[in-house]
Amino acid sequence: MGRTSDARKKILDAAQSLIELRGYSALGVAEICKAAGVPKGSFYYFFESKEALALTVIDEHWAAERSQWSRILKSDAEPLERLRLLFEATEAQHRAGRENRGSIAGCMLGNLSLEMCNQSEAVRDRLQEIFEEQVDLIEAVVTAAQSRGEVTVADTRASARAVVAQLEGQVLFAKLYNTTAPLGGLWANCQALLGARAASVPAET
Amino acid sequence: MGRTSDARKKILDAAQSLIELRGYSALGVAEICKAAGVPKGSFYYFFESKEALALTVIDEHWAAERSQWSRILKSDAEPLERLRLLFEATEAQHRAGRENRGSIAGCMLGNLSLEMCNQSEAVRDRLQEIFEEQVDLIEAVVTAAQSRGEVTVADTRASARAVVAQLEGQVLFAKLYNTTAPLGGLWANCQALLGARAASVPAET
Repeated sequence: MGRTSDARKKILDAAQSLIELRGYSALGVAEICKAAGVPKGSFYYFFESKEALALTVIDEHWAAERSQWSRILKSDAEPLERLRLLFEATEAQHRAGRENRGSIAGCMLGNLSLEMCNQSEAVRDRLQEIFEEQVDLIEAVVTAAQSRGEVTVADTRASARAVVAQLEGQVLFAKLYNTTAPLGGLWANCQALLGARAASVPAET
Repeated sequence: MGRTSDARKKILDAAQSLIELRGYSALGVAEICKAAGVPKGSFYYFFESKEALALTVIDEHWAAERSQWSRILKSDAEPLERLRLLFEATEAQHRAGRENRGSIAGCMLGNLSLEMCNQSEAVRDRLQEIFEEQVDLIEAVVTAAQSRGEVTVADTRASARAVVAQLEGQVLFAKLYNTTAPLGGLWANCQALLGARAASVPAET
């Protein structure tokens, strides 16, 4: 039992690292097993296919991220402060990733959306569900801020989606330029998108 | 001469279609040549490597897109109207792509940024240059709008980058959800980011 779950965890950890590094398509099951230090035969004991592995990697990644998002976005802090803290945590996480690996891996969910959604309907469906959950979490905070008169939005869901889109776009730039600098503007861009103040995109640093 | 440049063009066209469909990593030179209908030997007559091919595909893609962006963003229309027309053209292009292929391919530059930048420094450098050109084109319009008092931004470059990030984020959603609906909000999101009016993200449709 102990050894069995060890092998599964080793495969998942290796797959997550390799997917972050090189994406999904270029990976083979043999390479994942070699990196995990488990015999190739054991892969299919745990996972039906490489696609099934990808779905599990996505689920585990989002479970950890959702836990962080929920802790921040459902806290007792004032609504807009919760959004600010989410962007601060996102920037800190990518900064730590860069220090550990030398490069910014970006958002695994965004990476796999662009790489896989036109190749796997199962992955497309799962990633759609996850982004809807992200929009749900942001929308609840926007609604709270709206009821306090702190933001001015015509549609809380569309605005929440615009905030998530801004996050994905700036994380793309952070990965491409290999610097967390683009993430420093997220809070101001979010305020602007929510009509929280008139002009709020600060100077680039 | 005629036949030689034909073969090069066939390889480029096949590579562009295949990269749009499946990304870069999963492709092999043999597959590209087969799709192009040219012998594999001729590939290396035109391209030093698969990476060199990717750089050429990126350059040709951006040359066409830059021409469209320049035509719209340097037109005689009023500054903010030029931005609105850019988003309208972007939406129309993705709608046409969806009608032709059945799926939205997304932004090739964004797709390859996430897939390739941590694997090829040459591709990373080229894509950085291209996104700087995009920000240049948008920033010139923001500056013109700012001088007319139509927008309120603290830093025209950071604001222009936020607009491009929003575009990339919403195109990611268009690809993931395989619908152009997310692109319908681009103009309103852009106005909000530029402080062009207080609350401007419209309801989702």
